[in-house]
Amino acid sequence: MSAKPVVLKLGGSVITHKVKPFTPNLKAIRRLVNEIASAHVARLVIIHGGGSFGHPLAKRYAIREGYNGKASQALGLAETHQAMVALNKFVVDSLIHRKIPAVTLSPSSFIITKSGRIHTMPEEPLKKLLQLGFVPVLHGDTVFDSDLGFTILSGDQLIAYLAMRLNAARVIVGVDVNGLFTADPKTDSSAKLLSHINLERLRRMQQQLEEAKVADVTGGMLGKIKELILAVENDITALIVNALKPKSVYKALKGEKVSGTLIEKG
Amino acid sequence: MSAKPVVLKLGGSVITHKVKPFTPNLKAIRRLVNEIASAHVARLVIIHGGGSFGHPLAKRYAIREGYNGKASQALGLAETHQAMVALNKFVVDSLIHRKIPAVTLSPSSFIITKSGRIHTMPEEPLKKLLQLGFVPVLHGDTVFDSDLGFTILSGDQLIAYLAMRLNAARVIVGVDVNGLFTADPKTDSSAKLLSHINLERLRRMQQQLEEAKVADVTGGMLGKIKELILAVENDITALIVNALKPKSVYKALKGEKVSGTLIEKG
Repeated sequence: MSAKPVVLKLGGSVITHKVKPFTPNLKAIRRLVNEIASAHVARLVIIHGGGSFGHPLAKRYAIREGYNGKASQALGLAETHQAMVALNKFVVDSLIHRKIPAVTLSPSSFIITKSGRIHTMPEEPLKKLLQLGFVPVLHGDTVFDSDLGFTILSGDQLIAYLAMRLNAARVIVGVDVNGLFTADPKTDSSAKLLSHINLERLRRMQQQLEEAKVADVTGGMLGKIKELILAVENDITALIVNALKPKSVYKALKGEKVSGTLIEKG
Repeated sequence: MSAKPVVLKLGGSVITHKVKPFTPNLKAIRRLVNEIASAHVARLVIIHGGGSFGHPLAKRYAIREGYNGKASQALGLAETHQAMVALNKFVVDSLIHRKIPAVTLSPSSFIITKSGRIHTMPEEPLKKLLQLGFVPVLHGDTVFDSDLGFTILSGDQLIAYLAMRLNAARVIVGVDVNGLFTADPKTDSSAKLLSHINLERLRRMQQQLEEAKVADVTGGMLGKIKELILAVENDITALIVNALKPKSVYKALKGEKVSGTLIEKG
C-alpha cells in the first residue's frame, strides 16, 4: 500500500536556459513532465533547482552569506524568492496540465536553517500530501536562518534531507551531464563515466574535489556529492542521470537500466 | 523598538475583478501598494483573499467540503492552489516593485487545519520575517486538514488567528463596501453605516444574520463578523474600510480618521 517514496531532483540547468536569465526551458520541462506522468510512480516528491532564475539574483545580493542589515539586500531576498516562485509556477502548471496533482511546499514558508543547514521542518503537510496521493514539489529557495538571518537552501540539500526524513528508497538526480566521471570530461578527454560506485569511492571523490579547490559556486557536483553522501550513508540509493537526454528520467523512475551513475552504500 | 504588528486584509473582491475569472484588479493593487508604501508601518502583515481567482475553482471542486477520494478533485485542489499563487504573485511583485520586502508564507505549506479551523501553525518563519523587517504576505488557500483531508482556509480566519498569535494591536479589513450597516444597504435605503460598535453589538449582528439565513457562500460579512469577534474578544481593535476608496487603507494604516466601521471590545 504505502510504497517507499522516490525523490526526484530536476536540476536548474535542465529546466532553465543557463545563459539567458529568467528563461525556463519549457521544452525540457514539458518533456520531463510527460516522462514523470508516464512512469506512474506511486509516491513521488519532486525538487527543482534555481538555474538562471535563482542563481544570478542570489549571487548579486549575496543571500547565501546571510543578512547584512541593509534594506537593499532584504529587497534582494524578496526578489530572489519571487524568481524561484516564478520558475516553480512553470513546473507545477505543467505538471497539473498533465493531470498530476502537484502542490508546491514553499521551503521558506516552513523550513528554518541554522548556519545554512536544515534545522526545523514540520513534516505534517508533506506527509499529508503524500498520504493523499499528491505530488509535493519543493525547490531551492531563500530561507530564514537562526544564525545568519537568512540564507540559501539548495535543492541538493533538500534531496538528501527529504529522502532521509521520508525513508525514501532512492533519489534520482537529473542533471545536464551524464553522471560522475573519473576526471572532468570537459577538460580531460580520457575521463570515463562511473556507472556504479560505492560510498567509499564517493567519499574519495569528495576529497579529491576539495583538494583540487575547484570553484563550485553554483552548488555543482561537489555540493551534490556532499549531500548525496549523507543520503547514501542512510542506505538510500542515488542515481545521477542526464535529464536533458529524453527517456533518462523515465527509465530511472521505472527502475529500468539507464546510462548514469548509480551510487550505493556497499 | 518592536511595535505591535498591524494585520491588513485586502479583500479578494478588491484586488480582483469579481465578474471576470482570473483577472486581477491591477489598478487597485497598485494604488493599495502605494498607500501601504506611503504609510510606513513598522511591522505589517498582509493577508489577501481569493476573489475571482480562488472562489470559482474552490466551488467547482467543492474543496471546502473535504476530500472525496476522487483524482479529479485532487487535481482541482492543485489548480485552486495555483490560482491563488498566481494572484499572490501580482500582489507581491507589486509590493517588491514599490521596494517593500514582501515574502509570501504559503498557508498550505505550513498550516494544518482540523475540521476547517487552524490546528497547527509553526510560527518561526513568520516571527523571523517580522523581526528582520520583512512584510509577510499570506492568503486564503487550500490547506490540508486532519479530519477532512483538505479544505479551504479563508483569509478572514487568517486575520483573526494571526492577530491573536502575533499579539497585534489592530486589524484592518479592506472590503468593497463602506463597512457594517444597520441593514443591507443594497436592498434597504434606510440602512445606516455603523461607524463605531462594540463586541456586544457585533455579537447581536451575528445572531441577526444567522437568523436571517442570508446566503454567505463566499465567506462575506457573516464569515468576517464571526472571525472578527474572536479577535475583538482578545482586545484587538478591528477596522473595516472600503479599500476601493482611495486613501481609506492609507488613513487606516496611519491611524487617521477614516470612514468605516471601528469595532472595539468595550
